[in-house]
Amino acid sequence: MKILVVGAGAMGASFAHKLSKDNMVDVVDTWKENVDKINREGLKIKEIDKELNNTKIRAYMMEDYNEKVDLVILFVKSMMLDKSLKTLQHVFSDNTKVLCLLNGLGHIKTIQKYVKKENIVMGISLVTAGLNGPADVTLSSYGYNEISGVYAKQVADVLNASGMPTNCVSDVQESIWEKACLNGMYNSICTILDTRMSDLDNAYLLEQIQKGIIEEFHKIALKEGVDFNKEKTFEKVRICTTKDFKGSKHYPSMHQDLRQHKRKTEIDFLNGYISKKGKEYGIPTPYCDLITFEIKVLEGKVVR
Amino acid sequence: MKILVVGAGAMGASFAHKLSKDNMVDVVDTWKENVDKINREGLKIKEIDKELNNTKIRAYMMEDYNEKVDLVILFVKSMMLDKSLKTLQHVFSDNTKVLCLLNGLGHIKTIQKYVKKENIVMGISLVTAGLNGPADVTLSSYGYNEISGVYAKQVADVLNASGMPTNCVSDVQESIWEKACLNGMYNSICTILDTRMSDLDNAYLLEQIQKGIIEEFHKIALKEGVDFNKEKTFEKVRICTTKDFKGSKHYPSMHQDLRQHKRKTEIDFLNGYISKKGKEYGIPTPYCDLITFEIKVLEGKVVR
Repeated sequence: MKILVVGAGAMGASFAHKLSKDNMVDVVDTWKENVDKINREGLKIKEIDKELNNTKIRAYMMEDYNEKVDLVILFVKSMMLDKSLKTLQHVFSDNTKVLCLLNGLGHIKTIQKYVKKENIVMGISLVTAGLNGPADVTLSSYGYNEISGVYAKQVADVLNASGMPTNCVSDVQESIWEKACLNGMYNSICTILDTRMSDLDNAYLLEQIQKGIIEEFHKIALKEGVDFNKEKTFEKVRICTTKDFKGSKHYPSMHQDLRQHKRKTEIDFLNGYISKKGKEYGIPTPYCDLITFEIKVLEGKVVR
Repeated sequence: MKILVVGAGAMGASFAHKLSKDNMVDVVDTWKENVDKINREGLKIKEIDKELNNTKIRAYMMEDYNEKVDLVILFVKSMMLDKSLKTLQHVFSDNTKVLCLLNGLGHIKTIQKYVKKENIVMGISLVTAGLNGPADVTLSSYGYNEISGVYAKQVADVLNASGMPTNCVSDVQESIWEKACLNGMYNSICTILDTRMSDLDNAYLLEQIQKGIIEEFHKIALKEGVDFNKEKTFEKVRICTTKDFKGSKHYPSMHQDLRQHKRKTEIDFLNGYISKKGKEYGIPTPYCDLITFEIKVLEGKVVR
């Protein structure tokens, strides 16, 4: 199968590596140093117990890619999604499947502008990976993926064969919203307060804030035809600040973007999405409004 | 007149200095270095056009003061008010008047635990001053005070005679709440985001957040018998981020406490008061809840 991975950051490069065992895999990126180094020296990849150099992957600058492919896997930053699809629209044939595992809300509408609905496979990924520098990634956990769509089974077979555990579910939207609640709580608030998740443990009003944010996401989800389980989601959110959760000492990805790399965040696809849709539907979303306001002030201050 | 100023920080020391021209003024404080230096070397005071050394003021550690006085002026931090009044309760005779110009809400109830209601004069002060170190203050503006109460006229006469412009108003509660809205917006948010007021100018959703916070304060004010003018207050709040407002480049006092001096803040007497009262009255106050949560997480992180 011929696969194009869009975005050769931590996640994109890790998926490209695993898939390249049995498939022809190309990656496109906008970071020239990354593209050149993958082509020149191969992709350096560190897995749990081994480190190797993958020289099977070809890399291109996004605007230079002109081939038709069977499967496109999207791993750009949310705010780059629309622009990337526009640049790459000639890559899609009638049979090209598109897999989106990005965090955040509203991506399916963006993808539908360029790809027919039945070819889109949506999902979530619990794989974790880190970027050490150009053409240098660490795949720190295999986690698993959960996907749905007309061609989900076909895509899952490819991923499973490559060693990326992937389950097909009848509707992944609930999982997407649940994960958005998690990110809309911790990604945003840990970025605003420059804290780890564990720093929030036992904080005054924590449970109220967690439930309030989930409630706002749920009201918008209902309007968009998704009814995720609030109690189950709260339990997943609640556990994250406790020492039972081994990731609680980490800084979430939005913190890395804004605080460490002075980059814009994905707020518009998390709390900002809820805030914007709340205004469209006439639903008050004060928590998400204030969080979005705060993140945008911080972006204005630190993004170069 | 014999006057005791409680708290010899920037404001307390400035008031003590001005009042000491025509009155016997003592100050009490909990900071030994400050007390000792005032007694040993006098209070160094810088006014707009002059710098002098006031040796007329006697200073005491709070627990050592045992005299009866005619007027007590409270200039401790809000969170120290109850404890200070308890320590000093033997200072009040039946005729002792108590003046409170502190920022924040709920102080009158605390004072009433120790002083009969008719002897209490409440107000706001627009005087600004800074503390340079022990026994060393800068009185940067004379501003004015606004007070009300049975003995407001008598207290205003003393303040005016000392060169501190003071107006008597029939009810100062509206001004106290208006000022609390200003502080509940900028003190808290500039502390959370580590920004100046001017950094918020033109921020996404700014006007909605400003109006939302004022609305929450107003709902609690109504429950407590105060109906301040929301539109007038919004206009005062709105102007604060603009370059027309010469203070917009400053960091508010809560920022100084938490970010600069790693001290606890007055949040419980601003947004935290609204949040707590909202729960008592069954009124949702999501903005104040989230702001209080955020400030308390930051306090937990930085207060030594």
